[in-house]
Amino acid sequence: MKKEDVILSLGNDWARLKELLDSSLCSDVPLLNDINASLLLNGGKMLRPMLTLFFAKLCGGSPLPEESIQAAASVELLHNATLLHDDVADNAATRRGNPTVLSQYGAVPAVLVGDFWLARAVGLLVHSSHLYWMVDICSRTLIDLAEGEMLQQQKAFSSDTTSEDYLRIIYGKTASLFETACKMGAVSVSADEAIVAAAGTYGNALGMAFQIRDDILDYTGGEEIGKPVGIDLLEQKITLPLLGALENSGDDGSIRKMIHSIPEHPEYCAEIRKFVIDNGGVEYAENMVGRYVSDAVSALGAFAPSKDREILEYLALSSANREK
Amino acid sequence: MKKEDVILSLGNDWARLKELLDSSLCSDVPLLNDINASLLLNGGKMLRPMLTLFFAKLCGGSPLPEESIQAAASVELLHNATLLHDDVADNAATRRGNPTVLSQYGAVPAVLVGDFWLARAVGLLVHSSHLYWMVDICSRTLIDLAEGEMLQQQKAFSSDTTSEDYLRIIYGKTASLFETACKMGAVSVSADEAIVAAAGTYGNALGMAFQIRDDILDYTGGEEIGKPVGIDLLEQKITLPLLGALENSGDDGSIRKMIHSIPEHPEYCAEIRKFVIDNGGVEYAENMVGRYVSDAVSALGAFAPSKDREILEYLALSSANREK
Repeated sequence: MKKEDVILSLGNDWARLKELLDSSLCSDVPLLNDINASLLLNGGKMLRPMLTLFFAKLCGGSPLPEESIQAAASVELLHNATLLHDDVADNAATRRGNPTVLSQYGAVPAVLVGDFWLARAVGLLVHSSHLYWMVDICSRTLIDLAEGEMLQQQKAFSSDTTSEDYLRIIYGKTASLFETACKMGAVSVSADEAIVAAAGTYGNALGMAFQIRDDILDYTGGEEIGKPVGIDLLEQKITLPLLGALENSGDDGSIRKMIHSIPEHPEYCAEIRKFVIDNGGVEYAENMVGRYVSDAVSALGAFAPSKDREILEYLALSSANREK
Repeated sequence: MKKEDVILSLGNDWARLKELLDSSLCSDVPLLNDINASLLLNGGKMLRPMLTLFFAKLCGGSPLPEESIQAAASVELLHNATLLHDDVADNAATRRGNPTVLSQYGAVPAVLVGDFWLARAVGLLVHSSHLYWMVDICSRTLIDLAEGEMLQQQKAFSSDTTSEDYLRIIYGKTASLFETACKMGAVSVSADEAIVAAAGTYGNALGMAFQIRDDILDYTGGEEIGKPVGIDLLEQKITLPLLGALENSGDDGSIRKMIHSIPEHPEYCAEIRKFVIDNGGVEYAENMVGRYVSDAVSALGAFAPSKDREILEYLALSSANREK
């Protein structure tokens, strides 16, 4: 299967989603419109709204009701809003290989355009016939996102991050929104509670696998992934490959000490990276990705076999094992 | 009437609001809790949630249903979330005479704590029996807030701001949320549409008057207002006193030119300030405050006379004419 086939199988629903996203971002404030347009041109993989649409199809069939499209658009806007705010948090100069809004326009528009998108994301849900569920899921995810980033910020300055901290951080910053994307798809077509929960389990596991893969690529990827390799370490983000290597090696504290000194000694990064590779940190994290992917695929067992279920299986395998 | 009497007349509903605000801000991320606690201690006037409670009382009586308290808390959190983001936007070192989260903790927590509060603000609405209205009003106001700030940002670098631009900016950044605070109070006790609209008209007019007063104080106030006098001009924010003076004097373009050069010549501020005072800019803006206050008081005509209506009249007069 190819990425193009996945999108083709969404047919007109994919076009409806893109149209709704375009129209949701219109504003009569020119600066907002300029920034929105430049962001749309940079568009990412749109994996999250894709999950929403596939779960809506899996639970209710096609053509999808308008509220499935609205939920998918809401998820994508939520994601992009938090990316804008994360860029401010990370002081990031590029994203997806392009300059960030932060670096082009400054912190102010990055924060405010993020707020504008958050507001539109919430606004897209108001016509849902499952408004309570939609708003509840949406606000919880926003809380998870903020808590995940805050915890990461806090832990960046402490070298005692544990695997438990790490898993909590990536649940908050990534997996929670994947979970929401899948649940909203099911809710939008009135799926029953057990089915919504199964969709959430799939999304949660896929999100965890996706983020761990991202953190592996920071150690193994080339420049083509759209962000410089090794940036996490430079920002003192302690991710699973490093935690795995520390566990494997039974570190005596010297590596943790080096991590703590990175701001004054950025040259330590190369040495720590070598430590991670030499001590099987990447394999440790790969192993965890495999377990989460398998959880995601198992969760699909709650659904009858179908083309859409196959695609969701494919999406789990391919996103978690992607090379960029 | 005194401020204390106003709060006393809310009785136990005021205590319920404060309790709900406290519990809404709990998080198990320690850094978030620390910042939340320091912000709560700095608490402002809480005028907006007060308006929500009074309109709920005016339309439905006492004791208030839980959803009126929730709406009031939501409004206060929304307000504080946007203050946090505005501090990042304005790069502000102090707020209400205290150091900002931005200056104490940096831009990252200011943005993320703001997002956390926004999420809680939305989350507080989910139990409303008027969920559609609440979420719709809330998301529109968030859009207004972002658009207002963005327009202000854009106009800061252009000296051709008109009164129309100014009024649109202050509607977005201030009056929209006042309008929402009042409408949510009425909606929370199932008031009919015409009554909700009258509450909104009052809030809108009071918000406009409140912001213009704020902008006047930037020219006339002492240090006790909690922010340095003259800061707006230094940031090239063109507000009503300056616009009024320009209109009164029939400026030949030389003042607008000076405004444009403030970043390189901050010493121009004193001269521009003198121009505003000498050309009746303050009186021009005072006159506008008076018109908005009178609109606010007129809007109360839709409600039967009562103690609560008197208090709302008092709140309009006193907030719009405050000296700090």
